Amino acid sequence: MNKNRHIADRIKAAKARRRLKAEDYVKGILAGDRVMLGRAITLIESTRSEDRVKANEVVEKCLPKAGNSFRLGITGVPGVGKSTFIESLGLKLIDQGHKVAVLAVDPTSGVTGGSILGDKTRMEKLSTRDEAFIRPSPAGDSLGGVARHTREVITLCEAAGYDRILVETVGVGQSETAVHSMTDFFLLLLLPGGGDELQGIKRGIVEMADMIAINKSDLHLDAAKQAKRSYRNAVHLFPPKRSGWTVPTVLCSGIKGEGLDTILKHTAEYVSTTEESGYFRTHRQGQALHWFEETIEMGLSRLFREHPKVSQLLEDLKKDVQEGKRTPFSAADELLQAFS
Amino acid sequence: MNKNRHIADRIKAAKARRRLKAEDYVKGILAGDRVMLGRAITLIESTRSEDRVKANEVVEKCLPKAGNSFRLGITGVPGVGKSTFIESLGLKLIDQGHKVAVLAVDPTSGVTGGSILGDKTRMEKLSTRDEAFIRPSPAGDSLGGVARHTREVITLCEAAGYDRILVETVGVGQSETAVHSMTDFFLLLLLPGGGDELQGIKRGIVEMADMIAINKSDLHLDAAKQAKRSYRNAVHLFPPKRSGWTVPTVLCSGIKGEGLDTILKHTAEYVSTTEESGYFRTHRQGQALHWFEETIEMGLSRLFREHPKVSQLLEDLKKDVQEGKRTPFSAADELLQAFS
Repeated sequence: MNKNRHIADRIKAAKARRRLKAEDYVKGILAGDRVMLGRAITLIESTRSEDRVKANEVVEKCLPKAGNSFRLGITGVPGVGKSTFIESLGLKLIDQGHKVAVLAVDPTSGVTGGSILGDKTRMEKLSTRDEAFIRPSPAGDSLGGVARHTREVITLCEAAGYDRILVETVGVGQSETAVHSMTDFFLLLLLPGGGDELQGIKRGIVEMADMIAINKSDLHLDAAKQAKRSYRNAVHLFPPKRSGWTVPTVLCSGIKGEGLDTILKHTAEYVSTTEESGYFRTHRQGQALHWFEETIEMGLSRLFREHPKVSQLLEDLKKDVQEGKRTPFSAADELLQAFS
Repeated sequence: MNKNRHIADRIKAAKARRRLKAEDYVKGILAGDRVMLGRAITLIESTRSEDRVKANEVVEKCLPKAGNSFRLGITGVPGVGKSTFIESLGLKLIDQGHKVAVLAVDPTSGVTGGSILGDKTRMEKLSTRDEAFIRPSPAGDSLGGVARHTREVITLCEAAGYDRILVETVGVGQSETAVHSMTDFFLLLLLPGGGDELQGIKRGIVEMADMIAINKSDLHLDAAKQAKRSYRNAVHLFPPKRSGWTVPTVLCSGIKGEGLDTILKHTAEYVSTTEESGYFRTHRQGQALHWFEETIEMGLSRLFREHPKVSQLLEDLKKDVQEGKRTPFSAADELLQAFS
């Protein structure tokens, strides 16, 4: 595409966005208008304060129509075949009559310049389907920002009628925790191989998983079976899940579409048992409270650091504490006095 | 002891405490006066705001004379023989010419009514020695409170000339993290046995340990050797320590005094290598910063919750968030607006 043309398009879209009222966005989203949904997401990602106000209004107004979906977090190291897997799974879900939204949380995308899902051609077939909505991770934002935006985007997608939300992330640590806190079910994709795969993904992530799927099993069946066995054993060493769910370990092949039915059978079973036990609902309530508390904590910390008296004292006191000239407690008390 | 007499003594002590100025405490502490040290600790544990002000002054004034010690955290499940081990180790340290303070962090003591170290007869020989100072965990306080107080008590003990600070805790989770954050070296005591001991202590605690000692080895030598082997293997699976330290696994018997020389040889080696590398100092600086930041965070949270507008809105907004009537973000934003 011609670059100047591209920039002109973006300016035009920005102007359109400013003309639109919150109700216009909401009306479009509830009607399932994908262009409007996309524009609302851009609004959410905007850093302009007037856009933020409007974005909050849009999200708030979509909220009563949201929630009616299954939110599936998917993680795995680069090279595990996430995109191909998600494309196959998405197409299968569409075949079953669902509308599928694919989102991503990747706070590194801003740093590396690229972004997961950024290249839609990686999900060529899925992206041409009317029943699918694919949105890359916003670039150049903090993890806190990306996580908040993604959670808001989930609300909009649900209000637009998408009842299967797939949230992709790379297996690098903190972003998993964020995705785990906004999805109902957390799927870990692994490669076939010996007992050392754990090395590639961060500690704690295997424990977060509600299902472990060994991808690319068609290429390395023996290794995949071996991996399945060792993970099944490892999973039994972990403390039982609060959901009461026993973590299944399955083989699959995204590229051949193998094992996907089994995976969907397990997730359906998860939904029905946790809905029956009430866990599905209390888990979502707990997640909402988590984001509530985290947002307050981040906001308080920002107010504190930006307080004129605090910012004047902070560095000196920190230095005194480090050098053992002040106790951490009295130095903290002094700052809190200055703040209040 | 006659109960009324006991109460009369306490009232008398409280009056004496009020009469004393911060300088009086400091003078007594620096002279190594154990009665004054004990009274200053009671001042630290007091919840009266005038006592708090005086306590802060005492700690602050002792600070320049503090820090010249080795702080050893010791944890293990009930029944592992901590008291006997600490008594033997303490006596050995005194033989080597050290002054030993034994403190405890046990936030559950308030709940259960008892307290670890509460019964001094458990360390009968050590408690009669002039070179030892034993102080039980304060009862009826939050973990945050106990941790802060213990850290301040460490400062006072160091100023009073105690150069070996032993901080005991029970292996139940959060209190380990607190003790780990205020000591130079973290010793985990385990019982001899198969590979299942890990079940008894909380996940993550083995990883925090700088040394693992299998206690009561004299009673079950074969099992102890077996345990030593499995923990040595387990330790190798953990990521390397930032201190560069390789975690030794040793056998010991608190009651027979066996293995204590080996343990002290390892801790001496730890001190000399980490002092040489500079880690000993940067680790303490990092700990001070940790308590600084944690105290600020706790204080901010308290200021927030006690703010009249916030406390008026908080519960309703929380309920709205839980019920999905408000997004966690906009609800948090509203509270932050009300606060600032």
